[in-house]
Amino acid sequence: MASVAVLGLGAMGTALAGAFLTAGHDVTVWNRTAARAEPLAARGARVAATPEEAVTAAPLTVICVVDDTAARQVLDPLATTLAGRTLVNLTNGTPEQGRELAAWAEKHGIAFLDGAVMVPVPVVGTPDALILTSGPPKTFEAHRDTLAALGGKVRHLGTDPGLAAAHDLAMLDAFFTGAAGLVHAFALAGAEGISPEDFLSYATEVATLLPAIAAGFASAIGTGEHLGAAGNLRMDAAAIRHIAEVSRAHGLDTSALDSVLALVDRTVAAGHGEDSFSSVIELIRPPAPSAAPADRPD
Amino acid sequence: MASVAVLGLGAMGTALAGAFLTAGHDVTVWNRTAARAEPLAARGARVAATPEEAVTAAPLTVICVVDDTAARQVLDPLATTLAGRTLVNLTNGTPEQGRELAAWAEKHGIAFLDGAVMVPVPVVGTPDALILTSGPPKTFEAHRDTLAALGGKVRHLGTDPGLAAAHDLAMLDAFFTGAAGLVHAFALAGAEGISPEDFLSYATEVATLLPAIAAGFASAIGTGEHLGAAGNLRMDAAAIRHIAEVSRAHGLDTSALDSVLALVDRTVAAGHGEDSFSSVIELIRPPAPSAAPADRPD
Repeated sequence: MASVAVLGLGAMGTALAGAFLTAGHDVTVWNRTAARAEPLAARGARVAATPEEAVTAAPLTVICVVDDTAARQVLDPLATTLAGRTLVNLTNGTPEQGRELAAWAEKHGIAFLDGAVMVPVPVVGTPDALILTSGPPKTFEAHRDTLAALGGKVRHLGTDPGLAAAHDLAMLDAFFTGAAGLVHAFALAGAEGISPEDFLSYATEVATLLPAIAAGFASAIGTGEHLGAAGNLRMDAAAIRHIAEVSRAHGLDTSALDSVLALVDRTVAAGHGEDSFSSVIELIRPPAPSAAPADRPD
Repeated sequence: MASVAVLGLGAMGTALAGAFLTAGHDVTVWNRTAARAEPLAARGARVAATPEEAVTAAPLTVICVVDDTAARQVLDPLATTLAGRTLVNLTNGTPEQGRELAAWAEKHGIAFLDGAVMVPVPVVGTPDALILTSGPPKTFEAHRDTLAALGGKVRHLGTDPGLAAAHDLAMLDAFFTGAAGLVHAFALAGAEGISPEDFLSYATEVATLLPAIAAGFASAIGTGEHLGAAGNLRMDAAAIRHIAEVSRAHGLDTSALDSVLALVDRTVAAGHGEDSFSSVIELIRPPAPSAAPADRPD
């Protein structure tokens, strides 16, 4: 069994430390407010009085605090203590923050992975728990067996330390927009006299379609061929306009729908009326840099 | 086997007529442009020269044309011919259009169901095809066996003829907003150097979560208890703000995300910061009518 230090015992940090304990590892924890360590101490964790004490107790340190600013406050004074050891950052952040922390770690001779916990606290440590990491492959390989305690799906995404946060943000992008659509659908159903309980099986029908839709989008976006086989964007625009009008007539907020409709309308106006829905990506992405004047045909 | 007339042979009408033929029914078809009937005629359909001729050939008529206006143009002259027969409208429309057509049918002694085809053309007639109907239960029961030709999931939603279109709109509401979120996620992933192919399995992880999320939303919205167990709306707002900021830094359009964020921010400001995401429904729905001044405590 390995030794691991966990810095930060919020709900997520506590779950991470608990998962290491469950897997039989030797766990040392530290938290700014020491009282939060008590339940873990009762399960066999050693409680360090300072971050330095925690970090020196193990070759691997995992940090999970509220945000990047808090992480830097804890880590900056630890630079020399962490030298020659491994740090895994599971604090929520952006790809750029992950890359900056990686640069700091490299400067101080610290092996480093940036990561993201993609599941709610109760799922940590279970077979369903998806944990993303990115950074040097050999750093991941060296600690892969220890990190496996955190969940059944601990993934290494590549050398760029920004990749974990990038996947995190893109997944949450799809998640929150989809969740907003689901809540709006329940609101529209409710305005039409359909109870949440009755609408659930139909909401589930839609949700169940999305993995296949995502596969179609990936293929269309990858090839740039947005073929409108079963429908097209012009028809989609008409349908979304209907939904927004009926929603508005019921007094529902339609701001997210209106934004989607405006995007679809702009995409149709740009010449994609006969293409599939995935063609909206052409209007989401910034326009490609135009060719230099000399390259233009006369 | 039953006799059925199909009015309108666009892609969807042709698929519906084809599914009736496959099931062995006696099918008469009509379309404004007669040439579109030829493939069905080759499969054994009778081609009527006029809508009247089609309707008089069967006790059950199914209409599927481009929109409600087109449906009314075809149907208005048929009022006396359809009297005593059954009409099923599978033209896309709003709940109100379904109810208005039902009132017209009732006035003329026509048994009527409004409906919606919830799957793309190639899926019609397969076990996965979901077809919604609404109107008098006895009308549905009388033609249930014939309509079963259209797919494995032909559902009757209730007596209110607006219910099929209401379910249709609410399902498409969730679908299009979710689809927009997926495309945006692929765009953000792409801006971070992640290929559509590489991101697909992570997009699928998110999509696979949504049925359970929908079940949680149905329960929270049904009870009005938006308990923030694994997270809360204040944390969600911070995450969405991160996603929007990183997207904007990449030059991506963030209009839909910004609308979702503004809704979440308004919901937090209204006092739901510690509640779950589903509490945004309180700001989507119109405010409940305030109590009359006399009812207010002094």
